[in-house]
Amino acid sequence: MRVGDRQLRTIWLAEDGWSVNVIDQTRLPHDLCIWRLVDLEGACRAIREMQVRGAPLIGAAAAYGVCLALRHECSPAALERAVVALQSTRPTAINLRWALDQMRAALEGSPPSAWLEVAYARAAEICDDDVAGNRALGRHGLAVLRRLAEGKNRPLRVLTHCNAGWLATVDWGTALAPVYAAHEEGLPVEVWVSETRPRNQGLLTAWELAQYGIPHTVVADNAAGHLMQKGLVDVCITGTDRTTARGDVCNKIGTYLKALAARASGVPFYAGVPASSIDWSLEDGAAIPIEERAASEVTSMTGRNADGDVTTVSLTASPAANPAFDVTPAALVTGLITERGVCAPGDLRKLYGR
Amino acid sequence: MRVGDRQLRTIWLAEDGWSVNVIDQTRLPHDLCIWRLVDLEGACRAIREMQVRGAPLIGAAAAYGVCLALRHECSPAALERAVVALQSTRPTAINLRWALDQMRAALEGSPPSAWLEVAYARAAEICDDDVAGNRALGRHGLAVLRRLAEGKNRPLRVLTHCNAGWLATVDWGTALAPVYAAHEEGLPVEVWVSETRPRNQGLLTAWELAQYGIPHTVVADNAAGHLMQKGLVDVCITGTDRTTARGDVCNKIGTYLKALAARASGVPFYAGVPASSIDWSLEDGAAIPIEERAASEVTSMTGRNADGDVTTVSLTASPAANPAFDVTPAALVTGLITERGVCAPGDLRKLYGR
Repeated sequence: MRVGDRQLRTIWLAEDGWSVNVIDQTRLPHDLCIWRLVDLEGACRAIREMQVRGAPLIGAAAAYGVCLALRHECSPAALERAVVALQSTRPTAINLRWALDQMRAALEGSPPSAWLEVAYARAAEICDDDVAGNRALGRHGLAVLRRLAEGKNRPLRVLTHCNAGWLATVDWGTALAPVYAAHEEGLPVEVWVSETRPRNQGLLTAWELAQYGIPHTVVADNAAGHLMQKGLVDVCITGTDRTTARGDVCNKIGTYLKALAARASGVPFYAGVPASSIDWSLEDGAAIPIEERAASEVTSMTGRNADGDVTTVSLTASPAANPAFDVTPAALVTGLITERGVCAPGDLRKLYGR
Repeated sequence: MRVGDRQLRTIWLAEDGWSVNVIDQTRLPHDLCIWRLVDLEGACRAIREMQVRGAPLIGAAAAYGVCLALRHECSPAALERAVVALQSTRPTAINLRWALDQMRAALEGSPPSAWLEVAYARAAEICDDDVAGNRALGRHGLAVLRRLAEGKNRPLRVLTHCNAGWLATVDWGTALAPVYAAHEEGLPVEVWVSETRPRNQGLLTAWELAQYGIPHTVVADNAAGHLMQKGLVDVCITGTDRTTARGDVCNKIGTYLKALAARASGVPFYAGVPASSIDWSLEDGAAIPIEERAASEVTSMTGRNADGDVTTVSLTASPAANPAFDVTPAALVTGLITERGVCAPGDLRKLYGR
């Protein structure tokens, strides 16, 4: 995607041909910083501390984490250690496990002496596939937006939560892919951006949209129900960290509240669902492990002070809890926007022939 | 209420017998500062800028605002100017209009020469009535909590939103009055405190509860649905800024999302409703004017930096919208806890004989 006059992905191989550059998302939207991953530990830390975040992107980062581990030691034991370490960084998004399974499968047929080359090739492919998949997802989502825009002599009003834009993927995004496609095709859209406490990933969405000049308005997470009651939202689109076979959508905490409000006000609710986010082994989303993150994410906030310095301020001395995801039952989901097309949650198996 | 070893109300007559002390709530939970109101302009500013906030408290502050105006000039024209100025400070809470109506009614029978004395007496009475009413409301709410606690061999888990505690009233609070009553009576309670972006009034609730050692946990507003899905909430209680005759509850933005989630998970949802918050002239809550506050409340946040200084940080350069209230339809409300007892929303008229 475009940032100023640069074309960027969120993750790419450095010029040295082996280390991995990522955008440090903990510094956004305040500063655009590139971070270099040089070993397994660095890759694990970047995922755990959310320098890279977003289900598809942490899959890609895990794939490169395997490469960096193998570069240090190319053996079955080292591979196993890398998989275990990367898998344990974050529990909820299934893309992590998916990417690690992909890497293991790619290596299976070759002798360890060939692994390094195979691993880098497969990691690059996972990245390219993500980009191509999100483009396809965006085109299918655009058809949904076009239909919803029919007869409206004003921009279509999309509400999104968290960041499922290009920053959450290798490029283009999932929930935002249809928005970018609409922007490219000249279909006018306006985006309500839900702040997404505690980590404010909505502000990453706002930053992305600002790069393209796409009209958008940030709101507190609390405002979503009111906006829908007042008829100010035409469609909700979010991402997903794990989608079950029956179409339950596990995504950033607060997604479920938006889906409830959408249902109550008759607003269609869609999730952008790359195949890598589908957990075919699960039907019931209630079984998905929900990551509990540090209380300090709730009790503090980072921004720019009057001197222009990025500063963290403490908000309260009280204890806090920080569940990072929730599950939206399939019954509240109008449709899943995938690389293969758009389907009702109950038709996901059929769409994928499973 | 108790703060450390001090007994405090949120508003009281200063030792000089005419100026009015208030707790500056924009400084909490970081610092406890007392602010002195000496004229109408100061009272209006304190309400508008939310140094005093909470529907019952802004009613009491408006009553004293009339006193301060009359102290400057005791005439029908001055009274009219004061009422117009105070009424225009904030549009949503009906307590403001209620208190101004009370003041006007009290003055009606007397000559302007007696007004000053009458006004101060009526303002003091409004404050004392608020305290007594909230105590009664708390006792009725306690009966609800006792019933819900039956058979549970653990503390009752209450979720609240915003601050409808003693800081939002003259003393005791509305939503929190039953919690304080339970604490006094030895019924164990634990409180989930919803942060309440953008202004974080939930942190005032956390601060209040900490003074009493009542166990509580702050969560992002986004977490409420997940907590209820997981069976971790026994009851929701919020305040109200305006309740319609049929029982629609207009309260801090995000209340509606909690009510939707409560209904979806079978969690009872109550509002603490002092009589001063009831708008008998309205049936449909959709007709209530919703205050749109400054975007900067969404795009910035105030806390304590590493040096211990209270600092405001900017979170995003994007535009923001900031509707401050939403309306929870009566159909989502289990009951209204009033000074006169607890009733279904549809029985509010009957309870008050109107």
